[in-house]
Amino acid sequence: MKTEILTILRENEGYVSGQQLCDKLNVSRTAVWKVIEQLKKEGYKIEAVRNKGYHLTESPDVMSQAEIESRLETEWAGNPVIYMDETDSTNIQAKKLGEAGGKHGTLVVSDRQTAGKGRRGRGWESPSGASIYMSILLRPEFLPDKAPMLTLVMALAVAEAVQEVTGEAAGIKWPNDIVLNKKKICGILTEMSAEIDYINHVVIGVGINVNTESFPEEIQKTATSLAIETGKKWKRPDLAAAVMRYFENYYNMFAEAQDLKPLQERYNRLLVNKDREIQVLEPGHEFGGTALGINETGELIVRKADGSIEEIYAGEVSVRGIYGYV
Amino acid sequence: MKTEILTILRENEGYVSGQQLCDKLNVSRTAVWKVIEQLKKEGYKIEAVRNKGYHLTESPDVMSQAEIESRLETEWAGNPVIYMDETDSTNIQAKKLGEAGGKHGTLVVSDRQTAGKGRRGRGWESPSGASIYMSILLRPEFLPDKAPMLTLVMALAVAEAVQEVTGEAAGIKWPNDIVLNKKKICGILTEMSAEIDYINHVVIGVGINVNTESFPEEIQKTATSLAIETGKKWKRPDLAAAVMRYFENYYNMFAEAQDLKPLQERYNRLLVNKDREIQVLEPGHEFGGTALGINETGELIVRKADGSIEEIYAGEVSVRGIYGYV
Repeated sequence: MKTEILTILRENEGYVSGQQLCDKLNVSRTAVWKVIEQLKKEGYKIEAVRNKGYHLTESPDVMSQAEIESRLETEWAGNPVIYMDETDSTNIQAKKLGEAGGKHGTLVVSDRQTAGKGRRGRGWESPSGASIYMSILLRPEFLPDKAPMLTLVMALAVAEAVQEVTGEAAGIKWPNDIVLNKKKICGILTEMSAEIDYINHVVIGVGINVNTESFPEEIQKTATSLAIETGKKWKRPDLAAAVMRYFENYYNMFAEAQDLKPLQERYNRLLVNKDREIQVLEPGHEFGGTALGINETGELIVRKADGSIEEIYAGEVSVRGIYGYV
Repeated sequence: MKTEILTILRENEGYVSGQQLCDKLNVSRTAVWKVIEQLKKEGYKIEAVRNKGYHLTESPDVMSQAEIESRLETEWAGNPVIYMDETDSTNIQAKKLGEAGGKHGTLVVSDRQTAGKGRRGRGWESPSGASIYMSILLRPEFLPDKAPMLTLVMALAVAEAVQEVTGEAAGIKWPNDIVLNKKKICGILTEMSAEIDYINHVVIGVGINVNTESFPEEIQKTATSLAIETGKKWKRPDLAAAVMRYFENYYNMFAEAQDLKPLQERYNRLLVNKDREIQVLEPGHEFGGTALGINETGELIVRKADGSIEEIYAGEVSVRGIYGYV
C-alpha cells in the first residue's frame, strides 16, 4: 500500500484528503494514517492539514521498493521491483531469478553489495547509501548473437537519464561506460544464459556512482560520481526510474529492429570517442585511428591513418583514447 | 579407494595380490578386503584365489562415481566426476557448479533425472537404470561467439564413441543429434553463461539412450536406443568414458584452432545428411537443396536446385530430410 499512497501523493500537486486515499485504496482511515506515519519515519516530509489532507513536499534518497515503484512510469521494465537492503550482487540475484522462471522486466535493486561484480569477475566497490546497484532480468525472443548489443542499449539509456535528471553532459565511452568530464560514473555488466539458438535470459547490471564522496586511490583518476562532478546530491530513485523509462523505450525499438539502427544516431551523438583519436589494442596488433561512431550492430567504425576503415567488435579489442581514460 | 582398486584390477589382465593392493594404496589387508566385498555386493564379479589374489571378471552396468572414474582415461574431462543417483537435471547441477566456481572438466552424472531438459526448456524423458545423463562443465578461454561450435564437437565425440563401443554406424544429424538407423539415440543441450566478451562457463549435457527398452508413443518413430537397435545391452560407464576420451581430444584440437577446421572432415564423414536432399525451414522462407557438409564454423553448406550455395547457421533454421526424421 505504501507504493500506492506515494504514487497518489506524487500525482497530485496539491493536497489529497485522507478520505480520497481511503476510497481509492479501499482501506480504513487508520490504515492510511499508519502508512503516512511510517513514511514520515523513513524521511518523507508530508504536510497534514486539517480539512485539506496530505501533501508530499520532500522524499528522502532511499532505494526502497515503494519509493522506486512509485516513481516508475514503465510498462514492464521494473515490474516487479525486488529490493534488498544488502545482497551479494544484484546480477547474481537476478540470474537466480532467471533460472527460477522470473519475469521479463524484473528489477533487482540493492542499497549495498557485499560481492559487487565488475567485468570478468572483477570486484565492484559497493558501499551503501550512495550508489545505484540494479540488475534487470530480460527474456528476449531474438537469437543469442544479438544479445551483446543490449549492453549498448543500456549505456544509451543511462547516459540519457543522467542528462535528463542532472542536466550534465554525460557521454558514452564505447562500448558501454558512462562518463562525465572524462571520468567513469557508471559500469554495465551484461550476462547471458543461452542455448545455441535460444536465450534463456539476459541480466544487465547497472552500477551508478551517484552521491559517492570519494574513491579508493587506485581508481580516483578514472572514477567519479555525480555528486563530485556537480557539487550536489541527487535522488537515486529518480535516476533509477528515469533509466528504466529510457531503457524500456530503447529496448522496444531495438527488439523490433533486431539491431541498433534506430538508436545509432542517438548513441553516436553521445559517444565521447567520436571524431577522436583512439588506440585499438588487439591481441598482437595495435593501431591508431579516428573513431567515427558505431555501425548498426554496435561495432566501432575506425578510420586508420591510411584512410582505410575498420569495424571493430567489442569482444576482440579494448580502446583507449590518446589522452587519459576517455 | 574404490576407484583406485577398480582401476588397478582393470589395468591387470591376470591376478593382483592383496599385498600388491595394500602396498600401492598404503592401506591394510582388511581395508582392501572390505572394499572388495562392497564391490561384489554392487555386482562386480571378482575371483579371489589363494596365493594369486584378485581378478575382476565382470563389471555391472552401474553409473557409480568409482566405476566411471576407474574407466576414465582423460586428463581433465571428467575430473572430477560428481555422481548422484537422482537429480533434477545434470545441466542444472553443472550450471550451479559453474556459478560456484567449479573446475573446467567437472562431469555431473546421474542415473535418473526428475526434470530432464531438452532444448528450449522442453522435457527429456529420464528414467533410471538405462540411460546416460551427464553434463560437462567447461571454462573456455575463447570468445562467446565460438561457443556454439562446441555442440558439434560433442556430437562428433558421441558418434565416434558409440561406433567404437558398439561397432554400429552411428551418424550425426546436423547440427547435433546422434542417430542410428535414422532414429535419434542421443540429444545434446549446450548452455552458456557469458558476458559480452567473456565466457563464464559452458555446460554441455548429453543424454544417450543406451539400454532403454521402449519409448512413449509420441516419440517412438524418431527415438531409439542402442539396445533396441543392436538387440543387446551395453555398459553405460564404458560408453561414458569413451565419450569423455574423444571429447577431451577433440576439444583440445578445437580450442587450439578456435574453429572446426581440424574436425571438419571427421564430422562430415559421419554426417547422415551429407549428399542428401534436405529441406531448410527458415522463418518465412523454405527451400530444398543438397547438404554438402559443414564449413569451418559449423554452418551447413547447402547447394540449391539452381546450383547456388547457401551456408546456414543452426540458430536460424531447422533442417528436415525429405524422408522421415533424418
